[in-house]
Amino acid sequence: MKFISFIRLGKTGMGALVDGGIVDLTGRIRPEIDSLKALIAADLLTEAADYAKARAPELTPGDVTLLPVIPDAGKILCVGLNYETHRAETKRPDAKYPTMFTRYADSQIAHGAPMIRPAVSDRLDYEGEMAVIIGRGGRNIAEENALSHVAGFACYNDGTIRDWQRHTHQFSPGKTFPGTGAFGPFMVSADAVGDYRQLPIRTRLNGDVVQDATLADLIFPVPRLIAYISTYTPLSAGDVIVTGTPGGVGDRRDPPVYLKPGDVVEVEIGLLGTLVNPVMDESGL
Amino acid sequence: MKFISFIRLGKTGMGALVDGGIVDLTGRIRPEIDSLKALIAADLLTEAADYAKARAPELTPGDVTLLPVIPDAGKILCVGLNYETHRAETKRPDAKYPTMFTRYADSQIAHGAPMIRPAVSDRLDYEGEMAVIIGRGGRNIAEENALSHVAGFACYNDGTIRDWQRHTHQFSPGKTFPGTGAFGPFMVSADAVGDYRQLPIRTRLNGDVVQDATLADLIFPVPRLIAYISTYTPLSAGDVIVTGTPGGVGDRRDPPVYLKPGDVVEVEIGLLGTLVNPVMDESGL
Repeated sequence: MKFISFIRLGKTGMGALVDGGIVDLTGRIRPEIDSLKALIAADLLTEAADYAKARAPELTPGDVTLLPVIPDAGKILCVGLNYETHRAETKRPDAKYPTMFTRYADSQIAHGAPMIRPAVSDRLDYEGEMAVIIGRGGRNIAEENALSHVAGFACYNDGTIRDWQRHTHQFSPGKTFPGTGAFGPFMVSADAVGDYRQLPIRTRLNGDVVQDATLADLIFPVPRLIAYISTYTPLSAGDVIVTGTPGGVGDRRDPPVYLKPGDVVEVEIGLLGTLVNPVMDESGL
Repeated sequence: MKFISFIRLGKTGMGALVDGGIVDLTGRIRPEIDSLKALIAADLLTEAADYAKARAPELTPGDVTLLPVIPDAGKILCVGLNYETHRAETKRPDAKYPTMFTRYADSQIAHGAPMIRPAVSDRLDYEGEMAVIIGRGGRNIAEENALSHVAGFACYNDGTIRDWQRHTHQFSPGKTFPGTGAFGPFMVSADAVGDYRQLPIRTRLNGDVVQDATLADLIFPVPRLIAYISTYTPLSAGDVIVTGTPGGVGDRRDPPVYLKPGDVVEVEIGLLGTLVNPVMDESGL
């Protein structure tokens, strides 16, 4: 089942995408459960899917404004250099461990919303990635059981301000500017995805394919990431692991290509749909 | 005025330290305001201080269990390499910008609580630092006005798992293990601190001074940090900037010194009191 987060009539809510529209799930499975994160935390995705399948859609896409899949994610753990093609283009050495950095939830935007090129930089770059949404939380999760802790998957564009990423050796400032973390359009529940490794991932810039890989290419696969991360920090329902980007980022092209107002970036991942975001200048807001 | 966060009778709350004890502020200034972060966000520190001054203490320290100063901090922004003595011992080059990384709030512990040496490492190290607690939030805050955005200051021990910090070039995994971020004992409101640069900062390990500096030594002073950070991410009430550690960390000693069960680490900063934490093994919990 495909789940979305949205705003409707000024209030946040969530729903399921079904043939012909959206089934509103806000407060429907339990009265107090009014966000996708809360639904996941209560382990009610299956109930919600059954509820949605049994009903006719009440809402059309035009009735809601999409939000990032998990707008209120507690932890967003980003992985760098997790495809050989990207590691090679950045000229970084092999690593025994995943390269981890963080993004704040208030840097996220929905499918369709503009990615923001900030006033302080003209080096906004795309990074098409697959996001893993944690279901059951935990610490020291074993690799063997790790996939049972996944609620679902979605497309992510880990938009990066390249010069701010390189102000020092720590990436953090370039990785959490407002309006740079696109997340959507929807989460596909893990049961509907099957083996995530079969998914192709493709990023298009103004229609041209600029990144092209499959999730089988991840240097550190999802179970390893969950095991590693949960050793140093507890994972909770709704936490998001953004699993890294394939080769082909704009910054490593010759000449480099940075996003500018009017550009459109699409991240398409097999069953996870296509995340589309136009680019806008901060001053154009 | 000195403000604390605590648990009392199973519920979280906050109070002010006055002669002879604690004035409970939980729900007292406004019924709905039951945390220090909420008090700061409502801009009611001055009212709370006046309230506390006019009352006799109802609680003694024994009536409460201290929490980290801001247990529910939204963003904890840590600065690396912000004292020349520490930069030199790490052999890092000069930097034009602050080195920024992050910590999650669930890695924090209170004054008096044990710092946890995790099962996966014997390289737990101390880092005595001054924490800045944001009052009025904002984005693109000008350096000239930045100190007016500060609610107060406190001691912090940015406990670090050195081998995990160096798994890759990104520090994040070594900087947010549970039980490693000691924050307390209290926040001193900015009006009671005056010029923070006059404050001496000293870390003691089992009574021996291992770090000794003053806040005037910060390479990037507090106004510059606030201006820089708020360019790439909005700051909100209760966010915490942990401003960096002076030279003298255990890891750079010859031979290196790592924390072990039974050790006691103290971070003392002038008017901000002394943060004391014993060290315990994760298996001893």
